[in-house]
Amino acid sequence: MTRQELFEQIKQKNTYLCVGLDTDIQKIPKHLLACEDPIFEFNKQIIDATADFCVAYKINTAFYESLGWKGWQSLEKTFDYIPKSIFTIADAKRGDIGNTSSLYARAFFEQMQADSLTVAPYMGEDSVKPFLEYKDKWVILLALTSNSGSADFQWFKSENNQFLFEKVIETSLTWANADQMMYVLGATRIDYFKKIRQLIPEHFLLVPGYGAQGGDLRLVSELGLNNKCGLLVNSSRAIIYADDGKDFANQAQKIAKEIGQEMKIYLQEFC
Amino acid sequence: MTRQELFEQIKQKNTYLCVGLDTDIQKIPKHLLACEDPIFEFNKQIIDATADFCVAYKINTAFYESLGWKGWQSLEKTFDYIPKSIFTIADAKRGDIGNTSSLYARAFFEQMQADSLTVAPYMGEDSVKPFLEYKDKWVILLALTSNSGSADFQWFKSENNQFLFEKVIETSLTWANADQMMYVLGATRIDYFKKIRQLIPEHFLLVPGYGAQGGDLRLVSELGLNNKCGLLVNSSRAIIYADDGKDFANQAQKIAKEIGQEMKIYLQEFC
Repeated sequence: MTRQELFEQIKQKNTYLCVGLDTDIQKIPKHLLACEDPIFEFNKQIIDATADFCVAYKINTAFYESLGWKGWQSLEKTFDYIPKSIFTIADAKRGDIGNTSSLYARAFFEQMQADSLTVAPYMGEDSVKPFLEYKDKWVILLALTSNSGSADFQWFKSENNQFLFEKVIETSLTWANADQMMYVLGATRIDYFKKIRQLIPEHFLLVPGYGAQGGDLRLVSELGLNNKCGLLVNSSRAIIYADDGKDFANQAQKIAKEIGQEMKIYLQEFC
Repeated sequence: MTRQELFEQIKQKNTYLCVGLDTDIQKIPKHLLACEDPIFEFNKQIIDATADFCVAYKINTAFYESLGWKGWQSLEKTFDYIPKSIFTIADAKRGDIGNTSSLYARAFFEQMQADSLTVAPYMGEDSVKPFLEYKDKWVILLALTSNSGSADFQWFKSENNQFLFEKVIETSLTWANADQMMYVLGATRIDYFKKIRQLIPEHFLLVPGYGAQGGDLRLVSELGLNNKCGLLVNSSRAIIYADDGKDFANQAQKIAKEIGQEMKIYLQEFC
């Protein structure tokens, strides 16, 4: 998917919500456990209910890998089921030496046909470049994450007063432009949004941590939105586990709609 | 597996060779393609031929993920097939926020029953700690890798003249000791072995990049071995693709044996 296509979808739906399919077998409604593939059945109903009210789905691979090869099968079926008009994120945080990253690219861009993959930057350029060889596919590079451990290394400060996450952004700008690269920026570090937007005014930012991890949507939107939106705000648990009974998909839709109503205002105000 | 058990195995076999099962469907002998699961069949024969001549197997998950759920099935069968006396490394370079890393731990330590997992440090403490909750399981943390891109961030220098990889080692020492943590140290950065050994005299180092990526085994051994060996040197392609015909397993064994003969000398000399 191109940046323009993503932006068109955002304008059409009036939302920049990304729904995180962090589907945990221990948290889905009990009545689904009788299905042949409960994880996929849950995702299918969530997708049916929310596809009109979000522009992206983010699928964290850990939830699926924890179930072995059957989980991987549910993962593939889920990617396959999502309408092609919606942006898909394989949240796998991969990254390895060049020829190995090429294989991850094959896994997620060819096998799964995901539009994008989250990538950990520690191993540098050759670990990221193989993903960029795919036209209209995206790398979403970890920059500043929302977890407590982000303090350990991402805020490592250089002799030139530059933090590691700033160095990651600066260096990666030489690898690809805003048409193929996005950045993960945790909603818990709103104080840094302004500074990061100066470094990358045009890029899309993927903001996890909205909802369960805390984070103020108005502030994120005010500081993060640019003239082509430039923001995907992810919510997982607050949407997909809005209800644990038979009505779970309707309740998920309700929450997604509510977030969308708020986002519509911010799009008019700040985009 | 405990550190002592690993050391006992090394003494018994007189080798610290780790065989990398980077099994690529495009590189295995053609006659195997007729098997139901060519990847597993290849691994099985390599394991049968080399199990007496190595102390560890490292399995890079990318090769398996690139084949979809069937590849994941081959991965599981391979872990299952490896004799329990041999140390297993899931070379998956995972790392995510705490509750997600817990799921990766479930995938690799419970489903696969791997002894260890390679972990990328970028997301810090809570991304690593869930793996350390498993008794006698190991985190192998990326410190200094052997690829060209390692120059981008791993050598990022702090205001206190400390490189990022040194900071990663220093910080992670507060998370676990040498009984649960190892470090990845590329054989291409031999100049830094001595300095790193001062930081972590007791830890095991996993050294990839021997063979195809270059690296001097004598020098690595001289600088890396400690009084409990403390070294696992990985070779993948040079062993598993030693021959592309029906004799591939015997040829793999031959190379593993040869490396072992060299390692035996270094164990006597430096350990």
